[in-house]
Amino acid sequence: MIEQELIGDFRMKWERIREAMLKEGADGCLLNIGINLYYTTGSMYNGYFYLPAEGEPWFFVKRPNGLSGEHVVYLRKPEQLPELFAANGLKMPEKLMLEADELTYSDYMRLRAIFQPRETGNATAMLRLLRRVKTPHEIEMTRLCAQRHAAAYAEIAECFRSGMTDLQFQYEIERRMRQHGSLGLFRAFGTNMDIFMGSILAGANAEAPSPFDFALGGAGADASCPLGANGTPLTDGTAILVDMAGNFSPYMTDMSRVFAVGKLPDEAYRAHDVALEIQAAVEEAARPGASCAELYNIAYNRAEKAGLGGNFMGTKQQAKFVGHGVGLQINELPVLTPRSKEVLEAGMVFALEPKFVIPATGAVGIENTFLVTETGVEKLTIFPETIHQL
Amino acid sequence: MIEQELIGDFRMKWERIREAMLKEGADGCLLNIGINLYYTTGSMYNGYFYLPAEGEPWFFVKRPNGLSGEHVVYLRKPEQLPELFAANGLKMPEKLMLEADELTYSDYMRLRAIFQPRETGNATAMLRLLRRVKTPHEIEMTRLCAQRHAAAYAEIAECFRSGMTDLQFQYEIERRMRQHGSLGLFRAFGTNMDIFMGSILAGANAEAPSPFDFALGGAGADASCPLGANGTPLTDGTAILVDMAGNFSPYMTDMSRVFAVGKLPDEAYRAHDVALEIQAAVEEAARPGASCAELYNIAYNRAEKAGLGGNFMGTKQQAKFVGHGVGLQINELPVLTPRSKEVLEAGMVFALEPKFVIPATGAVGIENTFLVTETGVEKLTIFPETIHQL
Repeated sequence: MIEQELIGDFRMKWERIREAMLKEGADGCLLNIGINLYYTTGSMYNGYFYLPAEGEPWFFVKRPNGLSGEHVVYLRKPEQLPELFAANGLKMPEKLMLEADELTYSDYMRLRAIFQPRETGNATAMLRLLRRVKTPHEIEMTRLCAQRHAAAYAEIAECFRSGMTDLQFQYEIERRMRQHGSLGLFRAFGTNMDIFMGSILAGANAEAPSPFDFALGGAGADASCPLGANGTPLTDGTAILVDMAGNFSPYMTDMSRVFAVGKLPDEAYRAHDVALEIQAAVEEAARPGASCAELYNIAYNRAEKAGLGGNFMGTKQQAKFVGHGVGLQINELPVLTPRSKEVLEAGMVFALEPKFVIPATGAVGIENTFLVTETGVEKLTIFPETIHQL
Repeated sequence: MIEQELIGDFRMKWERIREAMLKEGADGCLLNIGINLYYTTGSMYNGYFYLPAEGEPWFFVKRPNGLSGEHVVYLRKPEQLPELFAANGLKMPEKLMLEADELTYSDYMRLRAIFQPRETGNATAMLRLLRRVKTPHEIEMTRLCAQRHAAAYAEIAECFRSGMTDLQFQYEIERRMRQHGSLGLFRAFGTNMDIFMGSILAGANAEAPSPFDFALGGAGADASCPLGANGTPLTDGTAILVDMAGNFSPYMTDMSRVFAVGKLPDEAYRAHDVALEIQAAVEEAARPGASCAELYNIAYNRAEKAGLGGNFMGTKQQAKFVGHGVGLQINELPVLTPRSKEVLEAGMVFALEPKFVIPATGAVGIENTFLVTETGVEKLTIFPETIHQL
């Protein structure tokens, strides 16, 4: 089931899950959501992954009918799980971890009725905490993604033609991203994160509030997709914030850069410089043990001091975070937000995105993905950070 | 909140929901999932739509902060709903419909704890039944989508270059689709439907089974995206099934066409003809009152009779349906499957997709989207159906 050269990486993940289960007093964890199956097995199958708090994992597969290996068992429906547990000498769990924040109510209740555990725990919350710290293979995949992401960004300027709209510009960037190996699928956690490949914000559209939990908004191309580019003409004096997410490997990177058509107002260049200063200040303070709330405050206070508090992370609607974990999903933990209780740990990967919205002009600022090292942070998304003239 | 010219359309939907609630003995329906908010309000916001079984709808909005109109109420968190109900003279429901197949377990439990209804009902199941029959505006949007879909398909042949892989071909098609107004986002119901814009199957990859509930499989570009194109070279003798879904309006259409590189084996042309015959036979039988199971059987029996039962809807893994409803999501009801109890009704929109996998060559067959009329069906996706030579 698992590729042989990666078995050590997966054993490390399983061991972390077992430790977390023991702390919770749980004796089994059953996963069904695709991204969690991929995290724990390297495959996205239709079925279940079961890890006892003490013992080896089991892979219960409905489809596809090609997976094989030790502890791989086929089934038609979850109601067979108790008999399959019995047949394989697996103890039914008394406290079972289930994906409470991802499974639908109906699927959760179905599994609970099948297992009838004394108690259930929240496997989603547990996994989201564990997934913050990446394994060596995950870090390698993230680095690969960052390199491809930067290579695609190097072609953005070539995509521009005078007279284009933001949407037309985006279509060309999307194609270049795909040619550089973008998997296309943009994975986010939660039901309130609808997006297609990324976001481009230009001109007055940068002020448009959106319903989603992304850093900035944008009206979007249609009322059914209310985020990002909306057909704004890219005329002289427009700042274009390109925040096309990097899913060039299953482990994503997040990176934003600003492109300018003609000359922008001085305020835009100044705000961009402030964003770069904020990045430098947070980068300087970020290391294992650093408080995520404190990192947010460093950013916010500098924005305030520069007289740009009203433009920081939006105008009409302002996001209350300046960074977030990145991994298999774009919005992982930790979140750099004033109410966070989290601290950085070595092996975490997070995006830092101080941005300012300049009414009528667009959005400026920066976003990069960082790896937390033993002593500080390492920037993974390397690409020139000044405003790129088109 | 609702665009004035569409108010009649939304009133029709609300009335259908009220009728369904009365049949269930429910006195209120609370919706939170984006696609259901869009269906009932024309906006995708972060918040709740509440419809009493007797009375006008209410719109509880967290974000964006721009929506306004009668019965629009802002809130920070769902725990405020009881006080907002009281302040607005709204009765707390005794039987409350909640999106049981869409809300996460945690979100569902949170809402249940807030409302403490005597009983809950499944709003997802109710809405999926109602959404089968489209309103006049929904049908108009579907027609618009079908026209743009066909216009994009007319450019597929131009996207081909000798020596390409299936993925490279797909990138060019994606760009053309976007230029024709594709919204990008591919919406599907359920957690087991990961896909990016659509699927292209060529050569031996057409046999690769996938974990998802789509008609055919394909290994995909990465283990984290196990569906569709996988880098297969488009060499002579390869059939390419292009099934790039049409989201050129919020109301999707589904259409597949076959493209050939060089000459295909005779078996492929013959199987394609059988697929066209199946389409004609089902089209002939489809009308209000026709049984969806019977329509599947017409298709399956013809495939069997042609000696192609083992190639029908896959080889190593065969899908057990030949069509499905289409709308805001690609996999709506009804499903043309042998166990279906559903019958067609005027106003339903469904995709019919008899397909055959020919080992080593690829997949052939057809897919079109049909509107059920008072007397039969009308094909919406008009584009030549023979195998297109590249």
